Amino acid sequence: MLPKPLSDLVEELNKLPGVGPRTAERLAMAILRRGQGDAGMLADALQNLHQNIGECEACHNLSSQNLCSVCENPRRNTTVVAIVEDALDVIALERVESYDGVYHVLGGIISPVDGIGPEQLNLRTLEQRVADQSVEEIILATNPSVEGEATAHYIRRMFPNIRISRLARGLPMGSDLEYADQITLSRALEGRQAL
Amino acid sequence: MLPKPLSDLVEELNKLPGVGPRTAERLAMAILRRGQGDAGMLADALQNLHQNIGECEACHNLSSQNLCSVCENPRRNTTVVAIVEDALDVIALERVESYDGVYHVLGGIISPVDGIGPEQLNLRTLEQRVADQSVEEIILATNPSVEGEATAHYIRRMFPNIRISRLARGLPMGSDLEYADQITLSRALEGRQAL
Repeated sequence: MLPKPLSDLVEELNKLPGVGPRTAERLAMAILRRGQGDAGMLADALQNLHQNIGECEACHNLSSQNLCSVCENPRRNTTVVAIVEDALDVIALERVESYDGVYHVLGGIISPVDGIGPEQLNLRTLEQRVADQSVEEIILATNPSVEGEATAHYIRRMFPNIRISRLARGLPMGSDLEYADQITLSRALEGRQAL
Repeated sequence: MLPKPLSDLVEELNKLPGVGPRTAERLAMAILRRGQGDAGMLADALQNLHQNIGECEACHNLSSQNLCSVCENPRRNTTVVAIVEDALDVIALERVESYDGVYHVLGGIISPVDGIGPEQLNLRTLEQRVADQSVEEIILATNPSVEGEATAHYIRRMFPNIRISRLARGLPMGSDLEYADQITLSRALEGRQAL
C-alpha cells in the first residue's frame, strides 16, 4: 500500500525497540513532511555513529576518545568505583550530580537464560583495576532485577577484601505505599533508616 | 556527558514527534548496539525517502510513480471519492478492505489558528476532478475534530449538486458507554440506526 521508499523506512524504524508498525508509520510520515534536510541530518548522524564511538579503555563507558569524560576528569575520586550494567546507567547516575567516583561498565548482566555468563562481562578489566589502583569502595549499581542481584552477588564474592555497597532498595519518591509491591515493601522495611 | 556522535543522534531523534529526550537516548543506544549494518540501512532508507516519493497526480496521495496504487487500479470505482486530510488516512481506510472508491488527499485541514485556509488545501484539483469525471458521491472522511468538521462543511458548500456523505459518528467498538464523552454520545443518539 505504501510507496516503496516509505515502506522501506517504516520497516527500518519498526526494528527499533518500542516502535511498533503504527508508530513507525507516523515517524516515517513526520520525517517525510519535515523535508529532505532534516532526514539528511538524521541519516548523517546514523552514519557517523559507529565510526566515531568506541569504549573507554579504563571503564568501558562509551567514548569517542581513549578515555571517557569521567575517567579523564582529574577531579573524580578513583578510589570509589560504581559498577553498572551499561553506559545508559552511567548517564542516569551522572544526572544526579552527587557522585564523584568513577564507573565500571559491565556491558551486560549475568543471565544464564540468554547464555551470558561472567566471562562475557568486563570483569577481567575490573579485577585488574582493583589490583592496580587503590580502590577502596565498590558500589554495586546493577538493576534491582533477579539478574542484577545475581551479578551483584557474583562480584561481591570476587572481592572479599574490599568495602562493597549497593544502591538502597526501598520506596521510590512519589510512589504510593498502597500500590507498592511486596518485595519493594519488604526491602523498605529491612532497610529502614533512623530518623 | 554523551560522546558527541551519540548526542548528535539523540538530538536528531529527539526532533521526531512523540520522541522525548529519554526515548531518544534509548533509541540511539539500541541503534549503537545493533551495529553499523542496521544503522546504515536506516540511514539509506532516510536518504532515499525524499528522492523517490512524490504526490499522485490525480489524488495527491503519496506515490513513487505519477499515479498512486489506488488511482492506477482499474478496478476502483472512480464515481465515489473519499476526501481525507493526509496520506495516512488513505492507509487507514485501505486497511479496512471494504472501500473500492478512490481518494482525494487535501494535504491539511482548514485551521485559521495555524493560518491554513481553503486555498492551502488541494481543493482546486478536487473541483477539476468533479467537473471532469462522473463523480456521483463524495464521502467526507476528515477527522471528527472542530477543524475536520469545518473543512467538511466548506467542501459541502462547494458541491451543492453532488451526493455528499460523511463517516458515521458514534460509539467506537469495544468502548464503554459509561466513559463515552457527551458529544460522542449525543452524536450516537442523533445517528441511531434501525435494528
